[in-house]
Amino acid sequence: MKFGGTSVADAERIKRAARRIVDTRERGTRVVVVLSARGSTTDELIAMAEEVSDDPDRREMDMLLSTGERISCALCAMAINDLGHRAISLTGSQAGIVTDESHTKARILDVRADRIRSALDEDRIVLVAGFQGISSSARNVTTLGRGGSDTTAVAVAAALKADVCEIYTDVAGVYTADPRIVPNARKLATISFEEMLEMAASGAGVLQLRSVEYARNHGVRIHCRSSFEDAPGTVVLSETETVEQPLITGVTHSTAEARITLLGVPDEPGAAARIFGALADANVNVDMIVQSEPASAGGRAYISFTILREDLRIARNVLDTLAGDAFEELVAHADMGKVSIVGAGMRSHPGVAAKFFSVLAREGINIDMISTSPIKISCVIERHLVERAVQLLHSAFELAGPGTVAEERPFTSA
Amino acid sequence: MKFGGTSVADAERIKRAARRIVDTRERGTRVVVVLSARGSTTDELIAMAEEVSDDPDRREMDMLLSTGERISCALCAMAINDLGHRAISLTGSQAGIVTDESHTKARILDVRADRIRSALDEDRIVLVAGFQGISSSARNVTTLGRGGSDTTAVAVAAALKADVCEIYTDVAGVYTADPRIVPNARKLATISFEEMLEMAASGAGVLQLRSVEYARNHGVRIHCRSSFEDAPGTVVLSETETVEQPLITGVTHSTAEARITLLGVPDEPGAAARIFGALADANVNVDMIVQSEPASAGGRAYISFTILREDLRIARNVLDTLAGDAFEELVAHADMGKVSIVGAGMRSHPGVAAKFFSVLAREGINIDMISTSPIKISCVIERHLVERAVQLLHSAFELAGPGTVAEERPFTSA
Repeated sequence: MKFGGTSVADAERIKRAARRIVDTRERGTRVVVVLSARGSTTDELIAMAEEVSDDPDRREMDMLLSTGERISCALCAMAINDLGHRAISLTGSQAGIVTDESHTKARILDVRADRIRSALDEDRIVLVAGFQGISSSARNVTTLGRGGSDTTAVAVAAALKADVCEIYTDVAGVYTADPRIVPNARKLATISFEEMLEMAASGAGVLQLRSVEYARNHGVRIHCRSSFEDAPGTVVLSETETVEQPLITGVTHSTAEARITLLGVPDEPGAAARIFGALADANVNVDMIVQSEPASAGGRAYISFTILREDLRIARNVLDTLAGDAFEELVAHADMGKVSIVGAGMRSHPGVAAKFFSVLAREGINIDMISTSPIKISCVIERHLVERAVQLLHSAFELAGPGTVAEERPFTSA
Repeated sequence: MKFGGTSVADAERIKRAARRIVDTRERGTRVVVVLSARGSTTDELIAMAEEVSDDPDRREMDMLLSTGERISCALCAMAINDLGHRAISLTGSQAGIVTDESHTKARILDVRADRIRSALDEDRIVLVAGFQGISSSARNVTTLGRGGSDTTAVAVAAALKADVCEIYTDVAGVYTADPRIVPNARKLATISFEEMLEMAASGAGVLQLRSVEYARNHGVRIHCRSSFEDAPGTVVLSETETVEQPLITGVTHSTAEARITLLGVPDEPGAAARIFGALADANVNVDMIVQSEPASAGGRAYISFTILREDLRIARNVLDTLAGDAFEELVAHADMGKVSIVGAGMRSHPGVAAKFFSVLAREGINIDMISTSPIKISCVIERHLVERAVQLLHSAFELAGPGTVAEERPFTSA
């Protein structure tokens, strides 16, 4: 069971999580819990670091940030003990979460779960501090980067061969679209790893991409559900386990995009490599890239790409150092968005893309860039049109339907 | 170098401490730093625990509380790195502070300082989280109890055979009396361990009793000084090192006392043992005890003793369960205080006690209870008379003098 920051934000919520953990234990299940830091703790710690240093050392940043999850775990253990059960909290290091040496964005190399196992054998409920580990050679405290607690939960579940990894959040599961935009969006009873990866990558915030990848690679069943209600959420399964593959599983979106177009890129090998190499060095993630055919652009080739809006300033600074050399002119559009449809069934239905484009065209929504995978189509459009596009696509692909997906696609436990 | 909570309470103070640490390093000294939690952090964490649990589990309390010092160390390491030096922060566990299993009041068993030593060999400034360790068999995080960071500092200094253990606080050293009460109190240049122990035990808050004991037992030289000014503070030395032994070193006091008198205690073996055993089980520390001669009390023997006022309610609850059995009637006086004089020289001057009592008598201050050691005399008096008693004693024993003690008792470095 993994509880996120909002689920342990104050004493009342910690007690509620403790009650839920104890209920699960009392149904005869052995329970390991992974917790995030409470609410805004991580942001507060980062603010403290920025007060004392202009460029905080990353090893020390990890030492600092790792305290947040430990506080959550210790408090939750106290609350569970008060309910008459025996809990024990473990730091990432004590829980055997071994990572590489990349401070602030470490990757899990191994989970040496002996201490978790022996605590379970002593009939304890084990609480593991999420988001952190210990580096394999230097034995330093490391953190896994934003959302790392989901990955901790999946990694611990894999190491213990757990029946299921339940991710408790403030949303009730994975929906066919964001219910704040599409009120009749349905909660999905199941989704395949591949679809979930595309959904996560294209804007569905419910699960971290890395944790879904880890779960797919290690065969961990994820159940993503609400920490505030008892109803089942969405189970992420391997494709062979899903009962049927609908054409379209869901519509996702993002309104956090920006587009940069570089004009006058010289038609020589290595120009693109220099541009994107420099952006990668500055930790700017590039999403879609469109490059003009050198011949067709009349000697003035261009490269256009999208990044997160919050990275726009850094990207400009980086690119300014290459101006006049790797390109002639930079044009930025800050207010872009992205709308995507995801569905394993579209592999065998070539007409999906055409339908997608025509839905947007009918509404006069201009498509700026397109990116596809076998089970996903994404379009970059202007930010203010994103909401309308999501609603139109959700309706055009008939995702609402009369009942819930749970009724249509029954999930049979393995 | 050990910095207390007020010395690292905010970003500015952390930077100031970092500057001071770097200055020391740049004078060619290898430096290990022990830090406390920032300001009120520990109290805030305790409040969080009390919000989730009526009786927080002690192991989990330690997991929770140990985060405060780690935050201080990580932040201070960042600030030192910004000054161009290489710092590394270590948790108590990483620093090799091995304790027993007594959660929330663990005792240090060993300091396995290999990791500190190798970091020093790499030319790093090492920051150690105070107040915490790891238990020797269960490998759990433990804490050393209030003021435990002083003990961490002394223990690390002993393990490394450091030249000196500098304790930086918000007072400039050890004074002949509390300067807030006696404006012409002098800062002592040196004091013996034995005197410092008596001073700490009788109310001088500058050093924790346990840390002074540890320093005496391991021959660690403590230099207690201000974190806000550069002037030397007070050096705690073995008695053989002190240049001369003044009659009286200082006057200490406490206004936190309460007195309980139990009337009608049966004249049989074991009555006192039951009473004080029950108080000890409830963690109530008893200071002075006076028992009446059974014969002289006309069949109504009594026991009178002092405790901290903050323990009065717990003590009453505990004693109520014994009422009618171990005693007949309980009388409590909440507003008591204690005034003490400490000095190694009084061993060879039998008139000191008489002078002490006559000073109080002349002022009409009634002495309630008396306790002595070879180098200390303490009297329990009414709380509102404490301040006046301290002033009279400081003056009667001529502790003010024209210059500072530093000039009278030069301290020669070993």
